[in-house]
Amino acid sequence: MQVAFIGLGNMGLPLARHVLDAGLGLTVYNRTTSKAEPLLNAGAKLAQSPREAAQAGECLITMLADDYALDAVLEGKNGALAGLPRGALHISMSTISVDLSKRLAERHANAGSQYVAAPVFGRPEAAEAKKAGILVAGAPEAIRRVRPLIEAMGNSVLEVGEEPSLANTVKLAGNMLIASMLEALGESFAFVRKSGLSAQRFLEIMNGAVFKSPVYENYGGMIVNERFKPPGFPLHMGLKDLRLILSAAEHARAPMPLASLMHDHTLSAIARGWGDLDWSALAKISADNAGLDAEP
Amino acid sequence: MQVAFIGLGNMGLPLARHVLDAGLGLTVYNRTTSKAEPLLNAGAKLAQSPREAAQAGECLITMLADDYALDAVLEGKNGALAGLPRGALHISMSTISVDLSKRLAERHANAGSQYVAAPVFGRPEAAEAKKAGILVAGAPEAIRRVRPLIEAMGNSVLEVGEEPSLANTVKLAGNMLIASMLEALGESFAFVRKSGLSAQRFLEIMNGAVFKSPVYENYGGMIVNERFKPPGFPLHMGLKDLRLILSAAEHARAPMPLASLMHDHTLSAIARGWGDLDWSALAKISADNAGLDAEP
Amino acid sequence: MQVAFIGLGNMGLPLARHVLDAGLGLTVYNRTTSKAEPLLNAGAKLAQSPREAAQAGECLITMLADDYALDAVLEGKNGALAGLPRGALHISMSTISVDLSKRLAERHANAGSQYVAAPVFGRPEAAEAKKAGILVAGAPEAIRRVRPLIEAMGNSVLEVGEEPSLANTVKLAGNMLIASMLEALGESFAFVRKSGLSAQRFLEIMNGAVFKSPVYENYGGMIVNERFKPPGFPLHMGLKDLRLILSAAEHARAPMPLASLMHDHTLSAIARGWGDLDWSALAKISADNAGLDAEP
Amino acid sequence: MQVAFIGLGNMGLPLARHVLDAGLGLTVYNRTTSKAEPLLNAGAKLAQSPREAAQAGECLITMLADDYALDAVLEGKNGALAGLPRGALHISMSTISVDLSKRLAERHANAGSQYVAAPVFGRPEAAEAKKAGILVAGAPEAIRRVRPLIEAMGNSVLEVGEEPSLANTVKLAGNMLIASMLEALGESFAFVRKSGLSAQRFLEIMNGAVFKSPVYENYGGMIVNERFKPPGFPLHMGLKDLRLILSAAEHARAPMPLASLMHDHTLSAIARGWGDLDWSALAKISADNAGLDAEP
Repeated sequence: MQVAFIGLGNMGLPLARHVLDAGLGLTVYNRTTSKAEPLLNAGAKLAQSPREAAQAGECLITMLADDYALDAVLEGKNGALAGLPRGALHISMSTISVDLSKRLAERHANAGSQYVAAPVFGRPEAAEAKKAGILVAGAPEAIRRVRPLIEAMGNSVLEVGEEPSLANTVKLAGNMLIASMLEALGESFAFVRKSGLSAQRFLEIMNGAVFKSPVYENYGGMIVNERFKPPGFPLHMGLKDLRLILSAAEHARAPMPLASLMHDHTLSAIARGWGDLDWSALAKISADNAGLDAEP
Repeated sequence: MQVAFIGLGNMGLPLARHVLDAGLGLTVYNRTTSKAEPLLNAGAKLAQSPREAAQAGECLITMLADDYALDAVLEGKNGALAGLPRGALHISMSTISVDLSKRLAERHANAGSQYVAAPVFGRPEAAEAKKAGILVAGAPEAIRRVRPLIEAMGNSVLEVGEEPSLANTVKLAGNMLIASMLEALGESFAFVRKSGLSAQRFLEIMNGAVFKSPVYENYGGMIVNERFKPPGFPLHMGLKDLRLILSAAEHARAPMPLASLMHDHTLSAIARGWGDLDWSALAKISADNAGLDAEP
Repeated sequence: MQVAFIGLGNMGLPLARHVLDAGLGLTVYNRTTSKAEPLLNAGAKLAQSPREAAQAGECLITMLADDYALDAVLEGKNGALAGLPRGALHISMSTISVDLSKRLAERHANAGSQYVAAPVFGRPEAAEAKKAGILVAGAPEAIRRVRPLIEAMGNSVLEVGEEPSLANTVKLAGNMLIASMLEALGESFAFVRKSGLSAQRFLEIMNGAVFKSPVYENYGGMIVNERFKPPGFPLHMGLKDLRLILSAAEHARAPMPLASLMHDHTLSAIARGWGDLDWSALAKISADNAGLDAEP
Repeated sequence: MQVAFIGLGNMGLPLARHVLDAGLGLTVYNRTTSKAEPLLNAGAKLAQSPREAAQAGECLITMLADDYALDAVLEGKNGALAGLPRGALHISMSTISVDLSKRLAERHANAGSQYVAAPVFGRPEAAEAKKAGILVAGAPEAIRRVRPLIEAMGNSVLEVGEEPSLANTVKLAGNMLIASMLEALGESFAFVRKSGLSAQRFLEIMNGAVFKSPVYENYGGMIVNERFKPPGFPLHMGLKDLRLILSAAEHARAPMPLASLMHDHTLSAIARGWGDLDWSALAKISADNAGLDAEP
């Protein structure tokens, strides 16, 4: 199978490498060409435009930062959609809006191509270690076709349904659950610290005896140790996701006041100049609001 | 060791039985005497007043619903404090205010008795199965003395520190973390349901691939299946805990807007007449606010 | 002066009539032609397209429901911008996004036309009675030119500055202040009613002795008497405005948690099926959340 | 009429002087005696204890900071209640909890004395200028009896009802409305400032064209000019009032999320060290959260 991969950021690069490692043919495109070098050295081909990349494969994978970046590589006369062969398949792995995913599904249906939404749970380290969980939604036949490829990239394939945009819905709702954990940890850590207890000890107790969750342990540890750089997923990307979920929830007529609260705290963190820290630095807002020194 | 146990509600009863099963002498007091019967049949003695119960033991355990109930059994001429022998030890297992716990510590110090705060994580079923996690805080010598007794009642002893009220702080902050999970699940479930996906499938994916936590699985399942009766821990008790944490956080000068949000939602649930449902019914508020039928 | 007026809804119609009453030449366009009849009977001309309307005047006034509706009449080959003569002036009175207003300013600068943003404070009755307050922002020379026209439509001309989009910013921030009043009244009314006092009496006292504001009296009265139909400004338009302000505030990096709260309550009101009631029905959410009957 | 006045803080002192100016006999008590001097020089008598003060008058007025301070002067063997003659009347002007007001009503009914709750709207300057609005609630006969006295202290007598605690309910709900205005102004000011407009101009427009309220003008000006010292009513007292209203609303089963939001922001302001600034400094939180310099 020939695969075209567009978007070699800190998530795209390791995923593309897994494709190559699986012995598949790989053509890549990235706005900043230098990022492609490790893959080119390992045998991948470089396309000069998204269109050229798409022409090379039966399957096009995109992994971009947001709706705008995805639009930019798909649309226009040098865009990937212009190059995608009839009958080919597009796997969109980016965290994008439910709305754009719905429009893409329509576009592909009209163009005679297939479309699978496959957003990813996991931070860059997890992607690298092939431990990411990959959501997939699309027509059963398309899912069957892409399954081996998806399995080459992550450690679990999480089927959501036949409507591609549902995978995006799950990804956004999932990020909201993760952010809720950050907010809850941030507030409770600030509270216990101001009550005379170390956040570290509180975390050990709570995760050891109640949650028993690797995610609580991992993020909790990042917050306790203020390990916010380099960001696995920066605050300004978190703001984007919260904006997407609030927008999707508004369309669905489902109020999400907790998501609103985290949107406002994330925005405040960015207004304070922390936009490039990891999203777990959301917890710094609670510490700050409690008058705690940012650096204890 | 002779143990006095006051408060045989749905948490106290199984804990008291474990004391008896461990072969220790047990004297019990409960406002409603009939609840004590299973223990009396198994060899426990019945005291006619909290004072009489306290006189019988080297160690007094209290497990009451709230500050008022605890005050009611401790104070006054027939109260437990009036009966507690000099040098005896009081283990307070109730979820009470940080403030009352501080005052009790002082009282006991003045009276020459020892005091350990030992609030419990776990619902009645867990207490029964000896799977509860028990927080302990107090003077090291007192902790040493009560450790075997605590170990007889739960499956983990979680040491918090020397200041007894810190265990109450951790219990409240912990309940806040659990409620945050309920609120986050409630909002995200309403969102995915209104977007056309089952909450069940969303939960399977999120807990399976991300959280991997028994608590998410358990509470998530209760919400998905609307299994809110009988309540393991009713909403009106949840309101009490949120009030206690907001009050403690105010004293500590640590704002907790997420706790405020959950307080308001829990209060609204009670205003709608759901006060006797399990706290996980907090999620019904998000469903209701989204215009979803309570019973899908 | 020849004026083209596009958008004859419940705000546009009375404003257009004031233009006619001031003795100015008026050409109108509306998607639903029948709404133009009263004006045509009074001497206005009817254009067959936005483009034709714009061609007829030195000054184009637009009063549409939202960004999409405004875009729809401005863009395309039959759009108003295609017909607007060089040197002509566009007064945009709609409540639109700060972002669209900025883009329009740029468009007009490039096309050699002038642009004034002139959103309106006041409900349809106020517009009819020529009591609306009209914000204006734009180049001083453009403001000078439109001032008599604006004065013909409302009872005060509120100059905001030279950057047109600032008038839109003020309009959005102003609507947020008004909605805050609705939310605060809604919550306090629910509280006093559940405490045994009539909301009517509370309102009389508060506005009489403290606020002394016609707006508090007017909206407070609508809430007390549940006078939500016909809507002066419906809840679903309120949702749009809150979405616009939250979006503008996000761009400005200014968190607005109170606006988020009202967004969520307005959304919940719509999810409950109240989207066509007046925005003041936002107060029903607080009553509902308190378990009060909607109709007392 | 002989009047006893206890509590000569920055509200009590001017109110007590109006009593003296009305030609009534006045006996005062204050913990810090020096504050009473201006009144003693003008003919008032000084009592050595609350009890002695109460014995001197047919009517006892109390104006204390909070529940604790009021309790402290009423209870105990030197407390005012011990001295109050049978048939005398107690006017409680403090902003206290609904709960304490209910208990006082009961106490007085049992003791054969009368009780009127009469909390005050207005800042110290207004009290001084005899422009405060005074709420009154109590038995009609008691109200009739105290009316001339109340009229001597303020410029309006606002009758609430027969149940004394309803006046306290109104006072708390009213303070919540005022704080809502502060929060809304704070957020909208931060938003317009970050959008390039002065808060001053925004305030002029909004109050001039929409609210037309002296309270918006006054508080808005304090915020715009950062005139937070000396405090007319300090933030830490605002926190107390929000705590009282949230507690009363919880008893009434009426969720107030906006009051919760302001509670959290007021608490954060105090955690940042601003507790002695005027409550209008609540607006600094929004500025801070938006990354604006506190002092522009």
